[in-house]
Amino acid sequence: MSENISGKTDVNKLGEFGLIDHLTKEFTTNLPTTIKGIGDDAAVIDHGDHVSVVSTDMLVEGIHFDLMYTPLKHLGYKSIVVNISDIYAMNATPQQVTMSIAISSKYSVEALEELYAGVFLACKDYGVDLIGGDTTSSPKGMAISVTAIGRADAKEVVFRSGAKPGDILCVTGNLGAAYLGLQILEREKQIYLSNPGTQPDLENEEYIIGRQLKPMAQKAAVDYFKEKKFQPTAMIDVSDGLASDLFHICKQSGVGAFVEEGKVPLHPDTERMALKFNLDPITCALNGGEDYELLFTIDEKDLEMVKYMPGVFIIGEIIPAQDGIKLHTTGGNIHDLKAQGWNHFKDESNNPKDN
Amino acid sequence: MSENISGKTDVNKLGEFGLIDHLTKEFTTNLPTTIKGIGDDAAVIDHGDHVSVVSTDMLVEGIHFDLMYTPLKHLGYKSIVVNISDIYAMNATPQQVTMSIAISSKYSVEALEELYAGVFLACKDYGVDLIGGDTTSSPKGMAISVTAIGRADAKEVVFRSGAKPGDILCVTGNLGAAYLGLQILEREKQIYLSNPGTQPDLENEEYIIGRQLKPMAQKAAVDYFKEKKFQPTAMIDVSDGLASDLFHICKQSGVGAFVEEGKVPLHPDTERMALKFNLDPITCALNGGEDYELLFTIDEKDLEMVKYMPGVFIIGEIIPAQDGIKLHTTGGNIHDLKAQGWNHFKDESNNPKDN
Repeated sequence: MSENISGKTDVNKLGEFGLIDHLTKEFTTNLPTTIKGIGDDAAVIDHGDHVSVVSTDMLVEGIHFDLMYTPLKHLGYKSIVVNISDIYAMNATPQQVTMSIAISSKYSVEALEELYAGVFLACKDYGVDLIGGDTTSSPKGMAISVTAIGRADAKEVVFRSGAKPGDILCVTGNLGAAYLGLQILEREKQIYLSNPGTQPDLENEEYIIGRQLKPMAQKAAVDYFKEKKFQPTAMIDVSDGLASDLFHICKQSGVGAFVEEGKVPLHPDTERMALKFNLDPITCALNGGEDYELLFTIDEKDLEMVKYMPGVFIIGEIIPAQDGIKLHTTGGNIHDLKAQGWNHFKDESNNPKDN
Repeated sequence: MSENISGKTDVNKLGEFGLIDHLTKEFTTNLPTTIKGIGDDAAVIDHGDHVSVVSTDMLVEGIHFDLMYTPLKHLGYKSIVVNISDIYAMNATPQQVTMSIAISSKYSVEALEELYAGVFLACKDYGVDLIGGDTTSSPKGMAISVTAIGRADAKEVVFRSGAKPGDILCVTGNLGAAYLGLQILEREKQIYLSNPGTQPDLENEEYIIGRQLKPMAQKAAVDYFKEKKFQPTAMIDVSDGLASDLFHICKQSGVGAFVEEGKVPLHPDTERMALKFNLDPITCALNGGEDYELLFTIDEKDLEMVKYMPGVFIIGEIIPAQDGIKLHTTGGNIHDLKAQGWNHFKDESNNPKDN
């Protein structure tokens, strides 16, 4: 492990996931009620005839959000949505949330009312109850911590670890837009900072900016699984980027995967905007993150079910672990897929981590 | 409501509890599984034959802890203990915790290992599983958010709202020491800052400093209630100070109370140190906070039960609301008891809030 000048190890050296693994490696779960601890989108607690799934996230000003371009109402809304997205990723129904905020004295009561208006709206949209929280001061900036609790039948819960070779890889919607939305907002911020008289140029970009500022959790997909009485073999929400999140499924399921580049869904605005930023649209889709779509695998026998599932795209297949994690390009080449998702401890970029 | 120069309302004007009440006043709970939302030590979720109780707290560097005198291992330990204290305050058994931390790059991996060593020890001491969390970066300082989940039979849960006139008021241990521990640590910090060559003078103060740096949650009391098959009519943990926490019980139960000054338990070290700081020991006990003892009321018929309860002190009685909340002094006078507990938005002092 690399050491810095004082002989101590810099947290940057481990990366976010490496750091969590390292810090929690001695923690075992001991209670019979703890079905699943650290390591999935959410933890699972036994209640006899059903289970609770529990997920928690922290959002920090200057790391996960920038109040120069994030309306507080959207921030409140998004704080809830990113957590209940983890609950859906377990194939469970979100029911309760708690929210704690630390704020510096620069925030007025009216600003907090805006934030809570967004929380209220998200709770209403997804039918969850806000049941607790903590409001405290902070010497500087804002931090928000949300814990979401969902409910499911024990046999319905879908982990990251159930994918097997032959399973079909699916995603609930287009990818990359949230990342490009962030690029636009960052660009306009820089323009504004160098010339405060300028009006932001956001026209015609409602879709991609909306994907960044007001993400949706994929309730419809989980409702569909329940209605049609089938379920994925593995599932995760796309918070860090398709590639990074697919790696989690592959690692925990002990499998490989291939992704058909040509089948990765892109919104026309995403393609157009990527080119405007001189970015490869597919790279944005694979590594952008914050789309909060569900990435899941299904058994071949359920293929007919997903063929008619609204908004769902089949993008690849699960293969044996020794065959690796591959991208089949539209040009006919096969590359190793690289997980380049965001790493807070390396670039302090804009991306919350799941669970 | 007071307004500041920009016409916006300063959060300081509402106070911490006023602010939470104000922000969440439009939130109602709608799900049949939500038995209790905001407003007690923890929320309560229905699971048929039993319930979950859920509590969450955020601890912020520079507000709730000062790393100049708080060893990271103690900080990790305390972060867990203050949350499971809320679970015991519902007469439930803590089972699972999640912990999220935001840290700036000044912290090394070794520093985080120390923090987690404390978390690990607290989980072991109280038999709880760490089941999830989030580790992210922060532009400055450290913030820790913990959510604790406990389990109880539905009929065992004790709220703040069940006290009635005639009930006996009890506390599980001595009060005021944690506050004085903080005063010593703050004093030594100031001395060190003005003369960095000085060694801190902490000799013979292990007890009070320990009460501040390594608090205990009152597992034994809750175990006793279960063993003897009786339960309090109302309960809260003393995090903000006896007076402030008694006010919560009185407000939510619609009752008054009197406290016998002479019966409020003080440790000899607390008395001695209070006098050294020119403070009234009883004021420290009534308003100091962070003792994490349980303050509870019992029905008169259970008096024999608490008489033999180890370490428990009977300090007063519940009276009708119209008779107010009173302190019977040792001098024979009767005063109104004032809740002066800490208010983060007024003095940025060192005291976490419950739930």
